[in-house]
Amino acid sequence: MNQRQPGTRVAIVGLGLIGGSLGLALRKAGYHLTGFARRPAVRRQALALDAVDVAASDLRETAAAEIIVLAVPVLSTPAVFRQLAPQLSPGTIVTDVASTKARVLNWAAELLPAGVHFVGGHPMAGRETAGVEHAEATLFRGRTWCIVAPEAAPPAAVEAVTTLATATGALPLALDAATHDAAVASTSHVPFLAAKALAEAAFLQPDWPRLQPLASTGLRDTTRLASGNALMHRDICVSNRAAILQQLDHFRERLAALATLIRQGDDEELLAYFERLKTERDRFVTYLDQRRNA
Amino acid sequence: MNQRQPGTRVAIVGLGLIGGSLGLALRKAGYHLTGFARRPAVRRQALALDAVDVAASDLRETAAAEIIVLAVPVLSTPAVFRQLAPQLSPGTIVTDVASTKARVLNWAAELLPAGVHFVGGHPMAGRETAGVEHAEATLFRGRTWCIVAPEAAPPAAVEAVTTLATATGALPLALDAATHDAAVASTSHVPFLAAKALAEAAFLQPDWPRLQPLASTGLRDTTRLASGNALMHRDICVSNRAAILQQLDHFRERLAALATLIRQGDDEELLAYFERLKTERDRFVTYLDQRRNA
Repeated sequence: MNQRQPGTRVAIVGLGLIGGSLGLALRKAGYHLTGFARRPAVRRQALALDAVDVAASDLRETAAAEIIVLAVPVLSTPAVFRQLAPQLSPGTIVTDVASTKARVLNWAAELLPAGVHFVGGHPMAGRETAGVEHAEATLFRGRTWCIVAPEAAPPAAVEAVTTLATATGALPLALDAATHDAAVASTSHVPFLAAKALAEAAFLQPDWPRLQPLASTGLRDTTRLASGNALMHRDICVSNRAAILQQLDHFRERLAALATLIRQGDDEELLAYFERLKTERDRFVTYLDQRRNA
Repeated sequence: MNQRQPGTRVAIVGLGLIGGSLGLALRKAGYHLTGFARRPAVRRQALALDAVDVAASDLRETAAAEIIVLAVPVLSTPAVFRQLAPQLSPGTIVTDVASTKARVLNWAAELLPAGVHFVGGHPMAGRETAGVEHAEATLFRGRTWCIVAPEAAPPAAVEAVTTLATATGALPLALDAATHDAAVASTSHVPFLAAKALAEAAFLQPDWPRLQPLASTGLRDTTRLASGNALMHRDICVSNRAAILQQLDHFRERLAALATLIRQGDDEELLAYFERLKTERDRFVTYLDQRRNA
């Protein structure tokens, strides 16, 4: 496995917030980084920020890397696979950072040549500010990095991707694609859809100009994810449709039950319920902080 | 109106986050502050933080103030009105900071003696950390402070409460109780209920221990309000039930429409919709920041 340790040649396709942050983190860990971005301004910025050693203007320049990381919107994945496929040598490892995994694994099986090893990845980190200019070397520190390998993936390829994730300060977690996609539908996708529905219910109301002075930090925080990358979120909805629709139904049932509780007027039960939720949510924040600061 | 300017004797009933922050802000503005809290530890803390000039252990000690501000959970309002009523002299102004206004105005009309002037108030500021130990003099700066006066309130009483709100750095906004309660149901109460439903859908799932590593800052932010004061939120639900149930229905309809949009699979429409929400939400954040930093 020595050739997968620091010094390994890694290429990142797509230098946005995640691709740029990954470049910063991996260069610190001693990897040699080639970054591809279509737009010259993004390449210049990535070089200026030291997020990459080499900024490639041609996707083919990434094919010589030992590990290629796709950091593009998930629906752009098959197009990148198709363009890369003829360039790849056997033994090359390909991974990604997309938020949904079942579709990506299917595309990899279908479009990448035999002998090229795909191992899916998904770092649980993000911010509503997109673009390489917001990249941070510490973005992944203490965050889970899901490793979703096809059954046929060689253990050495899985280990190389796991080592790469660990090098960013993330905590790798191996799981299968279906489990991953159902879990993130509930922990990540429904929350951003709830934020969007709250944003619509407020900002797109005809009388919003009159209501706006009555809104404050509560609405600001609950709608934060509505300021997230629209393309990324759209791609997630398209590529994880079934799991998302199921978890959205579940969330709407929770809201209906809450409305019933409020309508029934059992004040003590409502208080006990809110207190229990507070306890559990406080516990989750402690969990996140402890992992981040460990 | 000179007697309402700084130097005015103000009493705050309830020294939590809001009462304590109000004390800090008003003392800076030159008001003389008496603060009432039942618990000795809270009184000691308020004195230590310089949030009050005098810490009263008997509610009756607040009755000599020119303006009395209730900063208690909204369902505690009638009990405080009943205890204060026999002590109050004609001309005393009573106001509050509760999140719902119609019920409070009814209680004031019913329970306060003739000649005592009630003018409702509601500063649009808060945090999930309760208690005087988190009080901040700048909590209200650039935030709207709703002024909800009964029709019969003398203009001088309305002006005194408006002056007090302005002294904290807040931006006063006069409106009627029904308009206020409907507006905050949509801008504030439904967002905290959405946060609670998201918290339940995540933290109270039987398989949460397995899901937790897949949750990150998105879920943290969208559930922040589930860590808010449980008693305050319960009281809001009870005292603004009808408006909240109506706005919750509206929010569930938005979620159903969003589910339909995802199910239909018009990818371009979904992207355009998410982009529009991002634009509007970014605009709202700019609005909040500009007011806060003006």
